[in-house]
Amino acid sequence: MNNFNFYSPTYFAFGRDAENQTGALVKRFCGSSAPDGSSAPDAAKVLIHYGGGSVVRSGLLDRVKASLDGEGIAHVELGGVKPNPRSGLVYEGIELARREGVNFVLALGGGSAIDSSKAIAAGAVYDGDFWDFYAGKPIEEALPVGTVLTIAAAGSEGSPDSVITNENGMFKRGASGDAIRPRFSVLNPALTQTLPPYQTACGITDILAHLYERYLTNTREVEVTDRLIEALMLTMIHEGPRVIENPDNYEARANIMWAGMMAHNNACGVGRSQDWNSHNIEHELSALYDCAHGAGLAVTMPAVFGYVMEHDVMRFAQVAVRVWGCAMDFAHPEVTARAGIAALRRFLKSIGMPETLGELGGKEEDIPRLVDVLCNGDGRPGSITGFVTLNEEDCANIYRRML
Amino acid sequence: MNNFNFYSPTYFAFGRDAENQTGALVKRFCGSSAPDGSSAPDAAKVLIHYGGGSVVRSGLLDRVKASLDGEGIAHVELGGVKPNPRSGLVYEGIELARREGVNFVLALGGGSAIDSSKAIAAGAVYDGDFWDFYAGKPIEEALPVGTVLTIAAAGSEGSPDSVITNENGMFKRGASGDAIRPRFSVLNPALTQTLPPYQTACGITDILAHLYERYLTNTREVEVTDRLIEALMLTMIHEGPRVIENPDNYEARANIMWAGMMAHNNACGVGRSQDWNSHNIEHELSALYDCAHGAGLAVTMPAVFGYVMEHDVMRFAQVAVRVWGCAMDFAHPEVTARAGIAALRRFLKSIGMPETLGELGGKEEDIPRLVDVLCNGDGRPGSITGFVTLNEEDCANIYRRML
Repeated sequence: MNNFNFYSPTYFAFGRDAENQTGALVKRFCGSSAPDGSSAPDAAKVLIHYGGGSVVRSGLLDRVKASLDGEGIAHVELGGVKPNPRSGLVYEGIELARREGVNFVLALGGGSAIDSSKAIAAGAVYDGDFWDFYAGKPIEEALPVGTVLTIAAAGSEGSPDSVITNENGMFKRGASGDAIRPRFSVLNPALTQTLPPYQTACGITDILAHLYERYLTNTREVEVTDRLIEALMLTMIHEGPRVIENPDNYEARANIMWAGMMAHNNACGVGRSQDWNSHNIEHELSALYDCAHGAGLAVTMPAVFGYVMEHDVMRFAQVAVRVWGCAMDFAHPEVTARAGIAALRRFLKSIGMPETLGELGGKEEDIPRLVDVLCNGDGRPGSITGFVTLNEEDCANIYRRML
Repeated sequence: MNNFNFYSPTYFAFGRDAENQTGALVKRFCGSSAPDGSSAPDAAKVLIHYGGGSVVRSGLLDRVKASLDGEGIAHVELGGVKPNPRSGLVYEGIELARREGVNFVLALGGGSAIDSSKAIAAGAVYDGDFWDFYAGKPIEEALPVGTVLTIAAAGSEGSPDSVITNENGMFKRGASGDAIRPRFSVLNPALTQTLPPYQTACGITDILAHLYERYLTNTREVEVTDRLIEALMLTMIHEGPRVIENPDNYEARANIMWAGMMAHNNACGVGRSQDWNSHNIEHELSALYDCAHGAGLAVTMPAVFGYVMEHDVMRFAQVAVRVWGCAMDFAHPEVTARAGIAALRRFLKSIGMPETLGELGGKEEDIPRLVDVLCNGDGRPGSITGFVTLNEEDCANIYRRML
């Protein structure tokens, strides 16, 4: 196991009606980020940041505002976050936050609203262009962020990460830092019951991807994190079909919601090298085709795993046996490894996910452009690194496997 | 799943030589507890609290002091913590902390040193008798606590809990509160390599007990936490024998150390009722016989589980199949359930744990006294409550099963 630091100070309020605690939570955590402790909680002014009409129609926005009002907390709002959140709205949010003297950013929604909120929180207290952080500059300071989650997927509610699409070139990049970790996150599984099955399935796929990206490691002797990852995968495989079959199944929603957070706050990924090639390969798909990130991952993962399987057949055999219930072929472990990848593919199809680039709106002739941005964009050295280092030819082969 | 809050803000520095970060970590986290943010980090004065000679002999105390000196942090020290830490030393520590104007308590050791440190931290800023907290008063304020862990067992390095033995009557009670959660914990698996096999096995048993106490729930539909608990149990079963066979196995020590923390920071226990009857029943044993807590649990758990198994046979069958690898007897699930308890008993024996009350120094004629303190001590209503409510007769039956 590698040396590591682990820090997950987010406060989670989980369960029915938990959003009614939002005002009290902002009050409790508002001043917690100021290095000199000088922001008095009662000085809070909140930017509520959200996406489309669903948080308005469902009444969630009103309930959250009532909760803030109940604590005497002022607020302004900015809607319009789209899936694969854009740099343009982040600039708008930064401008608004500065103009209004906001000192807390509250995300209402899924990973897109949260990631956009994190970008605004970091940009609002930074003199330069917020994109610097997404080009590699460390985030050292940010307004405190809180979240009210409406889809189990990105894990951004418990992570220090944010991914934004740069509209100047349509490519996605990530930034990370403890300063943008949510101070609190409200997780009410009932809020996810109105999600369409397709979006629910995209979330399930994203969570599985976060688990596979950690599972595919080159670090040896990591039984505890292997087992924790497998536990969360087994949970998703058990609960996923139940929630697709019955979207109102609160209990299945609750299990998925906690698994989604645990999959990405890194408690199950510490002390081991991780992959993230599938995410990188997918990011170019959702940036170019504006498909759902989860749908892109459903197409990407089997293609990547089949391509890199030879690098560590026993690792793929292990997940096949322990998670997918495949029988171990001791004479031919590669048969078991492949059976596990096939089981993943069947599972993703069974919950309604696409299998091919075409279903995402992609075409074979796009591949050179996808590969070029992936391997050379933003200063990358002609390859991407993870479980296996993949050069341009490898990436082109992987995209072709998606056809 | 039940509604819950989860908050685990402890910073973990994990790996070889991590104790050399202690000074920097005290500096970083010293002021973080003051409600008005007024404690400047450079005003730190640390009470180093530890047990016997091993932290002195191993050089750990010197390395930690050097790390504090390197940051210009003043320190005083108080050794002498014993297993099953006593109230007498807590009073002494409180007195010392006040006299010296200490504003940070640093535990060096295992659960005993940490629990004693937490009690001192709470008592030092409280006007009354610190035992009030162990008799049920909520802990609202405490000096910040940090830990340098030397045994994987109690999980106190990531928990808000503390258990102290009252020397006036020799009984153990627990207290809990976010204020006594460690601000940071240093986890260097190499520090545990010098532990004798018996103490190592006691730690493994305590961790398994923390997992069983959470597993035995009356809450339905808790797949995610069931799976996480099972993952940590599987880790202990895999790594435990490896570390007993080879105490220098750093990798096995590392997996156990992270599992021990994860078993008790409650990430795997949220949203479900828990048991804790085995802990309560054992606490009377280690209070009366001064045996190791883990050894007491090894004797207690199979006795309790066999006694309460009928309450939920399928739960015991589930852990038998998923964790202990027993075959499911679909016609007779109770056969499978019993096989799982027998497998636990064999495992504990295989790592050198005792099986009977006699091995702990107990005698049949002590049972009435044990039962009386357990069920009626400190205002209890003649029974203890958990997975199953156990009255005096039940508890007497359970103690007799240990003979």
